[in-house]
Amino acid sequence: MSQAAQTIIKPQWIAQFTEQQYLTDHAVVIENDKIIDILPSDLATTTYPDAESIKLPEHLLIPGLINTHNHAAMSLFRGIADDLPLMTWLNDHIWPAEGQWVSPEFVRDGTLLACAEMLKCGTTTFSDMYFFPEEAAIAVQQAGMKAQLCTPIMEFPTAWGSGPQEYLEKTEALIKQFSDSSDISIALGPHAPYTVSDETFKKSVALKDKYHCKIQVHLHETQFEVDESLKHHSLRPVRRLKQLGVLSKDTQCVHMTALTEEDITDIAQSNSHVMHCPESNLKLASGFCPVAKLQNENINVTLGTDGAASNNDLDMIAEMRTAALLAKANSGDATALNAINALAAATINGAKALGMDDKTGSIETGKLADLVAIDLSQLHCQPVYNPISQLVYTARADQVTQVWSNGRRLIKDGSLTELDETALINNAKTWKDKIHNTKD
Amino acid sequence: MSQAAQTIIKPQWIAQFTEQQYLTDHAVVIENDKIIDILPSDLATTTYPDAESIKLPEHLLIPGLINTHNHAAMSLFRGIADDLPLMTWLNDHIWPAEGQWVSPEFVRDGTLLACAEMLKCGTTTFSDMYFFPEEAAIAVQQAGMKAQLCTPIMEFPTAWGSGPQEYLEKTEALIKQFSDSSDISIALGPHAPYTVSDETFKKSVALKDKYHCKIQVHLHETQFEVDESLKHHSLRPVRRLKQLGVLSKDTQCVHMTALTEEDITDIAQSNSHVMHCPESNLKLASGFCPVAKLQNENINVTLGTDGAASNNDLDMIAEMRTAALLAKANSGDATALNAINALAAATINGAKALGMDDKTGSIETGKLADLVAIDLSQLHCQPVYNPISQLVYTARADQVTQVWSNGRRLIKDGSLTELDETALINNAKTWKDKIHNTKD
Repeated sequence: MSQAAQTIIKPQWIAQFTEQQYLTDHAVVIENDKIIDILPSDLATTTYPDAESIKLPEHLLIPGLINTHNHAAMSLFRGIADDLPLMTWLNDHIWPAEGQWVSPEFVRDGTLLACAEMLKCGTTTFSDMYFFPEEAAIAVQQAGMKAQLCTPIMEFPTAWGSGPQEYLEKTEALIKQFSDSSDISIALGPHAPYTVSDETFKKSVALKDKYHCKIQVHLHETQFEVDESLKHHSLRPVRRLKQLGVLSKDTQCVHMTALTEEDITDIAQSNSHVMHCPESNLKLASGFCPVAKLQNENINVTLGTDGAASNNDLDMIAEMRTAALLAKANSGDATALNAINALAAATINGAKALGMDDKTGSIETGKLADLVAIDLSQLHCQPVYNPISQLVYTARADQVTQVWSNGRRLIKDGSLTELDETALINNAKTWKDKIHNTKD
Repeated sequence: MSQAAQTIIKPQWIAQFTEQQYLTDHAVVIENDKIIDILPSDLATTTYPDAESIKLPEHLLIPGLINTHNHAAMSLFRGIADDLPLMTWLNDHIWPAEGQWVSPEFVRDGTLLACAEMLKCGTTTFSDMYFFPEEAAIAVQQAGMKAQLCTPIMEFPTAWGSGPQEYLEKTEALIKQFSDSSDISIALGPHAPYTVSDETFKKSVALKDKYHCKIQVHLHETQFEVDESLKHHSLRPVRRLKQLGVLSKDTQCVHMTALTEEDITDIAQSNSHVMHCPESNLKLASGFCPVAKLQNENINVTLGTDGAASNNDLDMIAEMRTAALLAKANSGDATALNAINALAAATINGAKALGMDDKTGSIETGKLADLVAIDLSQLHCQPVYNPISQLVYTARADQVTQVWSNGRRLIKDGSLTELDETALINNAKTWKDKIHNTKD
């Protein structure tokens, strides 16, 4: 590392996610990969005389954002098929494109492109669910991020395997391979109620219990999914998963639209987490996740962008805003998911769901230095009455100027420090030329 | 003007809003304030050998965006009161703040801040409704933009006047004052059904008819407004306005949530226009405007940001995206308000509603050179399968690199060419210090 052993970061405001809404005139001190102190700015330099000092006037410092649902490699399919319903989009566009193009190289390149985008938007940790997760892991480590990689498990064959048995075997091998990693955790990703059998769900749960890992599943993405489940299983998807033993404190339910009070009770009682993906749900007309109701039942709600083919970006700042706006309209209550709670959903709530809140998700002494500085000095942010409100309702991802991940400064003055942005852009264009020429 | 008499603009793509989705490898030629030609790029330089040539690789050129509902001066109240219901927000925060602070100086300063923000986000024309419109006019002309200024008309006194009689007299004087202006048009702004009496609505219509101008009204902003109207007038607001003769092809209805089929028929039959403000409607939990249904009835739907106190920005690129996403979820149809139609709502549809489609809203020979170039070369926009999709679903306002308004290049390489950005920011901070110190 070329930086000094200790660094003092002096923003104007700090959103810690401990006691107060935000601190002013405080500094965060980091050493190696950790936060070692938070103290009044005017004491910082005398307390840590040998530290490098980074002044960030008019900046808000927040914990690194945590994107809890993604299909990162799909960034190479960004915009390939827009303005289409979910099943048409999947059946006629995404699945055929995946069938033709998904390979280890595609996943490594697409995930690295996604990592670069996420870092530039202030995300330091994410959960992914895609084929060849071992290739995604290489990209995550190259980018210097942390990720929960959910292995895709479904009944049908894909480029990654012949069917559920092979997916489960590969999952177990990956769990063992990454058991000592501090940056990569492997989770089970049984894809969705409509692509996974009862037997495969049960085997997934057994594997999860054996290795004490997490499980992430697309659940209640649409009313159609609920209707089909009632037809084929005589059960709503949530109840079916409850009966199969899938729901638990280690379970991450993605999407969660079309919910009844009973569904919500099942989720609350199991202490399962909800990954809310508002922009994807809107774009695919999937339905509305009742965030305010879920939070009233003390369900932990996190935020995810979903893949770039259904969003079309991986921008968690925009996602916070959409979530905060949509929760109000959906509940008819303009106080729902206020600015600080939207930021919590994008940080500490995500850390809790991924089982990483002992090391990230808030700015506290002893935690990893996952920090994002956002410049609120720009014209369209003026005046600043409340910096957190301004972040959620006004700021854009281009205002992210500095990002530290595990104490490494991966974004400096808005630019990637370790990844080669031009090379990544050119590589994406090369993929597009290949894919587009075949598509037309 | 310091630029050459003729300028050739050579973007990679052009969204014209005439026949095709977009043109590639074409150039737009402008002279003074007008577009004089659109032709293949490789012919442009030989056809116009004396012209200055501006190459914009990987840029999409679109018509200047048209923000059809704003309270521009309220940018000085941006973020002053968030996460509150509409009536609490109005009664306990916005109206008291306005009572204390709104003055000619406030309106001039706030509107100029808003104009600078809008230009940087690609907006060249807007509709405004605020006190002291004569001061807003000064800011609009200083900024080099075009605006429809709606004079606020309501039953109660404000800093701008003692009541409806004075508002109407001031409106008539302003109509006469700006009758020859090519950049400023005066429209009547009877505020809303719940703040304007039958008599004042009728007088507003009479004045509109006398001078052939437009009328803009907040209408069906919330279900509460509809309920109150039924209680006090035994009519839904749309029907009441129809009976009062307010609805016509010159009428601009802002918000339009909580609509029945009958309401929609009334709007369609009168050829009134709908100003959809999705982010404001979401943030204040006002309700959902059924954009897809309105468009199915051939109602002209435009986009507005509303004021920065309820949005909290004036970013029409983000507003297009929110509109496109929300229309899908609201209608349950992922094909609703597709990317090109969202861009149409933000350009040509707005021009039609404001009665300006003979001179702006599309890129056509003979129209004003209101042009915006958006850089799609950034990492988070890669790869580009369709530039219009990428603009609506991925791009951010910081990608606006060039803006021409009436042929004047007001944004060059992302920066304001005529307004002093630092001075505007400092002035906003000065206002904040005054307002905040009194507020606490």
